[in-house]
Amino acid sequence: MKVEIIAVGTELLTPDFQDTNSLRLTAGLNSIGLKVSFKTIVGDDERDLTRVLRTALGRSRLVLCMGGLGPTEDDRTRETLAKILRRKLVFHKEIRARVRERFKRRGLPMSASNLKQCYVPEGAEILDNPNGTAPGLWLETKRYTIVLLPGPPQEILPMFESQVLPRLTGSGRGLTVRRIIRLTGLGESAMETRLKDVYAAAPAGVTITTLASPGDLSIRLTMSGKISRLAAVALLDGLEGMIGKALGPWIYSRNGESLEEIVGALLRDRSMTIACAESCSGGLLGHRLTDVPGSSDYFLESAVVYSNRAKTRRLGVPAALIEKHGAVSAQVARAMALGIRKTSGADIGIAVTGIAGPGGGTPRKPVGLVYAAIARGRGTKVLRNLFFGGRAQVKFQSSQKALDLVRKTLAPTPGKVL
Amino acid sequence: MKVEIIAVGTELLTPDFQDTNSLRLTAGLNSIGLKVSFKTIVGDDERDLTRVLRTALGRSRLVLCMGGLGPTEDDRTRETLAKILRRKLVFHKEIRARVRERFKRRGLPMSASNLKQCYVPEGAEILDNPNGTAPGLWLETKRYTIVLLPGPPQEILPMFESQVLPRLTGSGRGLTVRRIIRLTGLGESAMETRLKDVYAAAPAGVTITTLASPGDLSIRLTMSGKISRLAAVALLDGLEGMIGKALGPWIYSRNGESLEEIVGALLRDRSMTIACAESCSGGLLGHRLTDVPGSSDYFLESAVVYSNRAKTRRLGVPAALIEKHGAVSAQVARAMALGIRKTSGADIGIAVTGIAGPGGGTPRKPVGLVYAAIARGRGTKVLRNLFFGGRAQVKFQSSQKALDLVRKTLAPTPGKVL
Repeated sequence: MKVEIIAVGTELLTPDFQDTNSLRLTAGLNSIGLKVSFKTIVGDDERDLTRVLRTALGRSRLVLCMGGLGPTEDDRTRETLAKILRRKLVFHKEIRARVRERFKRRGLPMSASNLKQCYVPEGAEILDNPNGTAPGLWLETKRYTIVLLPGPPQEILPMFESQVLPRLTGSGRGLTVRRIIRLTGLGESAMETRLKDVYAAAPAGVTITTLASPGDLSIRLTMSGKISRLAAVALLDGLEGMIGKALGPWIYSRNGESLEEIVGALLRDRSMTIACAESCSGGLLGHRLTDVPGSSDYFLESAVVYSNRAKTRRLGVPAALIEKHGAVSAQVARAMALGIRKTSGADIGIAVTGIAGPGGGTPRKPVGLVYAAIARGRGTKVLRNLFFGGRAQVKFQSSQKALDLVRKTLAPTPGKVL
Repeated sequence: MKVEIIAVGTELLTPDFQDTNSLRLTAGLNSIGLKVSFKTIVGDDERDLTRVLRTALGRSRLVLCMGGLGPTEDDRTRETLAKILRRKLVFHKEIRARVRERFKRRGLPMSASNLKQCYVPEGAEILDNPNGTAPGLWLETKRYTIVLLPGPPQEILPMFESQVLPRLTGSGRGLTVRRIIRLTGLGESAMETRLKDVYAAAPAGVTITTLASPGDLSIRLTMSGKISRLAAVALLDGLEGMIGKALGPWIYSRNGESLEEIVGALLRDRSMTIACAESCSGGLLGHRLTDVPGSSDYFLESAVVYSNRAKTRRLGVPAALIEKHGAVSAQVARAMALGIRKTSGADIGIAVTGIAGPGGGTPRKPVGLVYAAIARGRGTKVLRNLFFGGRAQVKFQSSQKALDLVRKTLAPTPGKVL
């Protein structure tokens, strides 16, 4: 059963506006076991809308169409659908009564343009709209169900929850259970190569999708079907186990948590504190760690030491060391990690120094060269990295590498993070 | 001429992901006079993708299709398009050479799955991808032009700007000129009230749209039509003048620049340096300042002093002052700004201290209470703020307020920022 969501509105075809209703609708549909196969966005142009509705009715069994039900000239969804289905528009007195009542409560006369909203394609059921003037419409034939919904979030979302979802329940195919596994430290193609057996082993009803951006990867497992929740969870557990074997060392989270949440939980568990020394990450490391509520329990401080003088004065990195090896070097990274640990009194010190670009690179030290270091009671560790991408990507990957260094230090058993 | 954008990826049909590339593509297309008529989102299912591509080629003259070009099993766009067009897939040695070179630079062997990306529908031109392994493809027939682009933003956006837009120039109808005015420090409804006369004065062909998020507002002026660039610019200049009169003190940028770019340009102009002391912003202030390429010329350091001990040790904030007034107080904010200025040797010191939430609030000092302070040669200034929103919003607004304090200090004439 194919499901399609259509969003109508010329503003949704500009660079400034984005349809977000469909995300909420999708979550609701998923919760009753329905997946969305197509999303389409079209403007207020009647010919374009006709095309889009015709295409949708040709390929989808359930079509949710939102927007274009208002009182203005632009709003053509009702009329367009009636033409396509060759149904008359019928005047509904009840709609007029409700809209009139709504205006009355505000002490206003009903506007003439609102009369338009009282015309409805023959045979359509009306979905009441307590939060606006445009009623929703439900039209069912043997071949498809089409639902017209108003566009404003405060109107569509309550209507969808209270009137559309209940009608759809039972038309779904069982339930949907999802799981998100997140990884860092390897490339997309390397991950895919290692996932080959997992793809092959995935039982019917399970979809595996992957997503990659520089420094961060995720694997999403979705089980949909007529199956009990317990059985679905067991199936996903089995797949997760296979994925753990194939990719354990790179997995940092098995329930979609961010790396900073995982690191925070590890520190909290062990009653340890952390402090950072940042050069090329510019504060992003501290920013990410403090995005987690309650992080003040373990995060003490971050010294964003961009200038060499700050590296020396704040962290005690010897000026001679910087002179000899350069600010971007394994030696300085190590000294920064030791320096922040000592001066902050934290259990763990982490440091990042590198060249974020676009300027500042040399053949020997190119843009993207980043050292990440960790210092704790037992000693230090430094990693040399060469990251690709622009300034923002290099900064992100630097912070990711430093956080992952903490994770690996605190939870050295691959795949057993929490 | 109908233009359609297709986004391919099963994750884009879940509640968690949204296509944002299309907004940037739309902005680029608009800039050369092309409007988008349809946007479609489809999963990695080959049959669904076939349907969507067939529909698009039937109704649109230009089709931009992004995603599904990667090395994995899921990535089927190339193959699907070849089947629809009944073209063979041809192996391109140059692609293999480039991908191999890319892996070599990282010191890795080329993965076998990447070989897939070297097969291209016959007759397609190759668009080089300096930021990833998947090349883009350009296929032109008498009836339509179809462009396949990679999905990751860091790959598609540079490719679109540097290779797709230049090829499309000249195929538009008339031109579109846009301008983005950005503001901070006032609410959305206050801005709308002050814009009333501007809306009324806007000539035909000009669209004014506004966008608001906590701490940041923007006004977008778009002029489209058969008009010379000079005339369009003059029209927008007139409107911008009106907006400047109505909203001058809150405007920080008139060409879409971010606040950190504006502050960076002001510091560079005056050959001044800056350093930050951050508590509740957690490093975001340093992160934003260092997002600007070349910021090492004026940004010295940021002390992210989350713990009270760090405030005292790093910045010399007297423990007694914290004891007496609390870490979140005007007195401590001022001492932090003075402390970072003195210890860093910067011309300007800025500081932020507050309660980001969700925990830590009291009736007298609620979540969202934030003090921002600035210290320079002539003295100090402290602002008390009460921000709404969650942790992320409070952090962002804190950084925004501190940066705006720098802007206002360095460019005190309202509306004359650069």
